[in-house]
Amino acid sequence: MSSTRDIDALIEMMAKLPGLGPRSARRAVLHLIRKRALQLTPLADLMQTVAATARECVNCGNVGTADVCDICTSEKRANGEICVVEDVADLWAMERAGVFKGRYHVLGGTLSALDAIGPQELRIPRLIDRVSSEGITEVILALNATIDGQTTAHYIADRLEGQVRLTSLAQGVPIGGELDYLDDGTISAAMRARKAL
Amino acid sequence: MSSTRDIDALIEMMAKLPGLGPRSARRAVLHLIRKRALQLTPLADLMQTVAATARECVNCGNVGTADVCDICTSEKRANGEICVVEDVADLWAMERAGVFKGRYHVLGGTLSALDAIGPQELRIPRLIDRVSSEGITEVILALNATIDGQTTAHYIADRLEGQVRLTSLAQGVPIGGELDYLDDGTISAAMRARKAL
Repeated sequence: MSSTRDIDALIEMMAKLPGLGPRSARRAVLHLIRKRALQLTPLADLMQTVAATARECVNCGNVGTADVCDICTSEKRANGEICVVEDVADLWAMERAGVFKGRYHVLGGTLSALDAIGPQELRIPRLIDRVSSEGITEVILALNATIDGQTTAHYIADRLEGQVRLTSLAQGVPIGGELDYLDDGTISAAMRARKAL
Repeated sequence: MSSTRDIDALIEMMAKLPGLGPRSARRAVLHLIRKRALQLTPLADLMQTVAATARECVNCGNVGTADVCDICTSEKRANGEICVVEDVADLWAMERAGVFKGRYHVLGGTLSALDAIGPQELRIPRLIDRVSSEGITEVILALNATIDGQTTAHYIADRLEGQVRLTSLAQGVPIGGELDYLDDGTISAAMRARKAL
């Protein structure tokens, strides 16, 4: 069907997005075609705008529309504390929780021998620079509780040892979590870190 | 964060697509921003093209880029048979199976008293017209095996009774299906329609 070439190409591109597959891409594209004036055109316009303006913050790696992001330039944020995360999505999750008022540093991944990702491939050298140049007193390692995440946290902790206070997020039972559904590792960690009532 | 307004708006629009939610929209948008030159710009361009060219076929309701779709105009397709489906996605599913070589008719939904969708809201009058004007001999009702789908099939069958041969898709055990995972209705239908070996 030659005249549906563009539609097929659009489905194929959408299907490659994380979280989507061929079936959900077809559904999404059909939905957009049905509402093309109200949704497809505005969505395409917005994508053009974002493609033209979005960039990574040269300081922390957050995503924004300026060379240095809002969080790095904000005067309302506390200086002296950096929260290190793997990915911008993790930074957004921290911001939704609204519990941290310092600055961030987005590594852009984790160390991985298998994928040949060393400190230079991440923003680790830049983090080391920031810790001395910005007068940082505490680095919170908010990396994922995976093998690669924890390896990366250990590497950074080694590099910064003695220069700043190093902390990591507490591990334990998630709020609302049921013990029966938790893995053994989480239960062990929560037990070891038990608190007096 | 004012300077991420467009990014937030893009996430919000993507989150409204069927099959996506806030979390998968955030992941998809971050992925697109990371690959903005290679993926976000081409995707936006393609969406603009599709928004400008895609339209519903005036004859059968299929989606394409011409007023009358490829399937309706194709000389390779058999005349005389119309396969009636609820949605363009169903038409695509039939085409992937590659087993039907006639024409299609996309209703655009099912009759639903609850949602006040009557025959006029669907393409049912146009189907009745086509059956007489195109010299149709068989109408295959390939509607979903849901209450609304079957109600619609019965309504169409009533309207076309005596004019054409009316058929519907066989019901039974899906290929590769395990009895243990099938609902009672499917097993009953398969049992009633059992075949001699």
